[in-house]
Amino acid sequence: MNLLEELQKILSNDQVTVNETILEQHSKDESYHTPHLPDVVVFPESTEDVSKVMKFASTNNIPVVPFGLGTSLEGHVIPYQGGISLDFQRMNKILEVRPGDFLVRVQPGVTRSQVNKELKKYGLFFTVDPGADATLGGMAATNASGTTAVRYGVMRDQVRDLEVVLANGEVIRTGGLSAKSSSGYNLTGLFVGSEGTLGIFTELVLRVHGIPEEIVAARATFPTVEQAVQTAVSILGAGIPVARVELVDARSIYQINRQFERNYKEEPTLFLEFHGNKSGLEQDIELAKELAIQEECSEWAFETETKARSQLWEARHNLAYAFLHGSPGKKMMVTDVCVPLTELADAVKYAREKLDESGLDGAVLGHIGDGNYHALVMFNPEDANEMSRAEKFNAGLVEYALSRGGTCTGEHGVGVGKRKYQLQEHGSAVNIMSLIKQTLDPLNILNPGKVLPNL
Amino acid sequence: MNLLEELQKILSNDQVTVNETILEQHSKDESYHTPHLPDVVVFPESTEDVSKVMKFASTNNIPVVPFGLGTSLEGHVIPYQGGISLDFQRMNKILEVRPGDFLVRVQPGVTRSQVNKELKKYGLFFTVDPGADATLGGMAATNASGTTAVRYGVMRDQVRDLEVVLANGEVIRTGGLSAKSSSGYNLTGLFVGSEGTLGIFTELVLRVHGIPEEIVAARATFPTVEQAVQTAVSILGAGIPVARVELVDARSIYQINRQFERNYKEEPTLFLEFHGNKSGLEQDIELAKELAIQEECSEWAFETETKARSQLWEARHNLAYAFLHGSPGKKMMVTDVCVPLTELADAVKYAREKLDESGLDGAVLGHIGDGNYHALVMFNPEDANEMSRAEKFNAGLVEYALSRGGTCTGEHGVGVGKRKYQLQEHGSAVNIMSLIKQTLDPLNILNPGKVLPNL
Repeated sequence: MNLLEELQKILSNDQVTVNETILEQHSKDESYHTPHLPDVVVFPESTEDVSKVMKFASTNNIPVVPFGLGTSLEGHVIPYQGGISLDFQRMNKILEVRPGDFLVRVQPGVTRSQVNKELKKYGLFFTVDPGADATLGGMAATNASGTTAVRYGVMRDQVRDLEVVLANGEVIRTGGLSAKSSSGYNLTGLFVGSEGTLGIFTELVLRVHGIPEEIVAARATFPTVEQAVQTAVSILGAGIPVARVELVDARSIYQINRQFERNYKEEPTLFLEFHGNKSGLEQDIELAKELAIQEECSEWAFETETKARSQLWEARHNLAYAFLHGSPGKKMMVTDVCVPLTELADAVKYAREKLDESGLDGAVLGHIGDGNYHALVMFNPEDANEMSRAEKFNAGLVEYALSRGGTCTGEHGVGVGKRKYQLQEHGSAVNIMSLIKQTLDPLNILNPGKVLPNL
Repeated sequence: MNLLEELQKILSNDQVTVNETILEQHSKDESYHTPHLPDVVVFPESTEDVSKVMKFASTNNIPVVPFGLGTSLEGHVIPYQGGISLDFQRMNKILEVRPGDFLVRVQPGVTRSQVNKELKKYGLFFTVDPGADATLGGMAATNASGTTAVRYGVMRDQVRDLEVVLANGEVIRTGGLSAKSSSGYNLTGLFVGSEGTLGIFTELVLRVHGIPEEIVAARATFPTVEQAVQTAVSILGAGIPVARVELVDARSIYQINRQFERNYKEEPTLFLEFHGNKSGLEQDIELAKELAIQEECSEWAFETETKARSQLWEARHNLAYAFLHGSPGKKMMVTDVCVPLTELADAVKYAREKLDESGLDGAVLGHIGDGNYHALVMFNPEDANEMSRAEKFNAGLVEYALSRGGTCTGEHGVGVGKRKYQLQEHGSAVNIMSLIKQTLDPLNILNPGKVLPNL
């Protein structure tokens, strides 16, 4: 079958392409996973378009992989079985802001910076901030989070309602507009994090928050990574409602200084942020600082100005790119495990030791208020030995996390990279997941080969 | 088949009974729904017991209805098809407190007051507080919430991991111990709120919180219900992280004064609570009070002492019982809709008007920070006309909420009472729910006749 011609019959000509450059753009994400070309790229402009595509795909048994901006980190959007890459760049409208309900209704191709620009007009913001300026559809598909999850929760906590196109083209809505509901099964929570394997999002209703009266950021430097981690744990234990608490190790500070022309002290550092009213923050910050000093904090620098604060978080969010730019010819593997808080200090120490042992360049950092930490590992993709050492290191961290009640992925998702750990982490619950997948996608055309080890 | 004898073969004799009094206790909940006797009541003492019962039940096609303390409000635990009522009163152990991880691991028969008594030793508390002292298993089954959801979230937000016995007796775990995860499908969120229709909980890992440094409660009195509601909306709009904001109408205050010997002003009232540090609270409360005064608040009374605070919330939590005791011979219907915040003032006004029109005694109150409000409606169960007026009133509120993007149940769940609204609220998503039910419980033996309209 000529997919291009057949799809152009049901959509308009300019919505379907087999242009080589565009196919190549849809063959990969930002991970180290091997690319694979789709047969065709389709640009839907409406829910109806997506429904038509799914009816066609299910009639003809053709794989469909939803595509946002390709910023996924475990190969989620790579079409390993070819078929249709469904690119949502034309479905990028903010449909409605409901400030009084703290809600925004968007199409899936809207990015987080785009929605925040609009929300700012209303004194509101959307909390979830993964490193990349990803699409909201993609963020919902992977249950993304980022630096603010410790205070405001992960993507799943923000999604109030989804419009979903099912494998057969049928359209459903999963939730509603009220702040809570005990009606029916929680389909919203099931679809969030399903990585395009159960249905395709065509509209999202998201919870938003008022911009806090006062925001204060701080940088705190410590002699060791363990002391930085211990400070984070103490701050949470003291009940301080910290909005962000990020570990950035010495090697990362070095890269930040080089790439962004900063002069931060090149030692293990916490980037912190506090949200609240003025009086409350003063008390919170004083206590947090005391706890840091108990862990031999050698420098505590406030960033109260909006600009300095933005620079701090810009540096944090672009850290992965700083490493890539600072390591020409190298690729990056990003690990992503999460452990219970009491296991965190040991876990981060273990990661640092194993990274040193691997002989590879890299950094350990993370959203440690949630027990979620990443290692950025640089390796030469042409060098099988380096690649294998990076993979062994990654596997070692996953084994460690799982043995301590943690998870193989805190926020990046399963994609292809973490499929092999699903049975180990979830045991026979994987059978239930597989049954749900078979029920919703009996032909296995929705992003096949992702999430589940056997489908 | 003699169920008693057969079940006594696989459990011990004292774990199975057909005693009439005990059967009768398991024939009803706290709602107005018609009771129905189970054939037998079983008291499991372990996960293995539950697994054995489910293997027996699935082999012999016998309905099983999990039973906590029978405090459900929509007939959830009534065994309309007979079979086994599975009472968790012997599985009431707190298995582990992990203070550093802010987690507690419990058996499903543990009640919320029981867990809070234990957690207090660690300076921790469990946030979810429905009116009744329900079991945690039951609260997870209905996705219960209560007065603190506005700040800390609903039951689904607290459940980190479940041990679930499936229809065929197989045992799975749905989550883990880490604060977040993007691994696999979100089975935890799917089972929470499934009301015993997808599987039976035998263990729960729940998130807990540190007891705040400072807690201040307040009572604010207003000339009208609308002004009270508007104050709540303004407080949320101002970004004040209020921990509780409850509407209690004049009629309810009258019942509280009579039943609990208080002398609260008998006017529409907000019961408020603020959690935080001392300095922050002072600023929050000052602003909240200003907002109340703008709505002609006639009295603002602080309850800073622990005892006065407890008395305030005791009165709130026992309001339904106050009405029952104050209305001998009557039964109570409790409505439970939830609307978007911008719809709340009109919705509460509508409810009050319709209640007056019905000619029935009752009150309008609720967790209005979430847009969730209840009407308590008293009626004579022997009087078909009163019963029909109460039902018509309830249906009117549901229609109103659904027409404004709300839900037919904010926190009580579907049970039998809200089945008839599932299609209207969820549209064709109900088909997906039914497919999931059929996949997990092909014989329809898990609490049959609940949640879904067609199963």
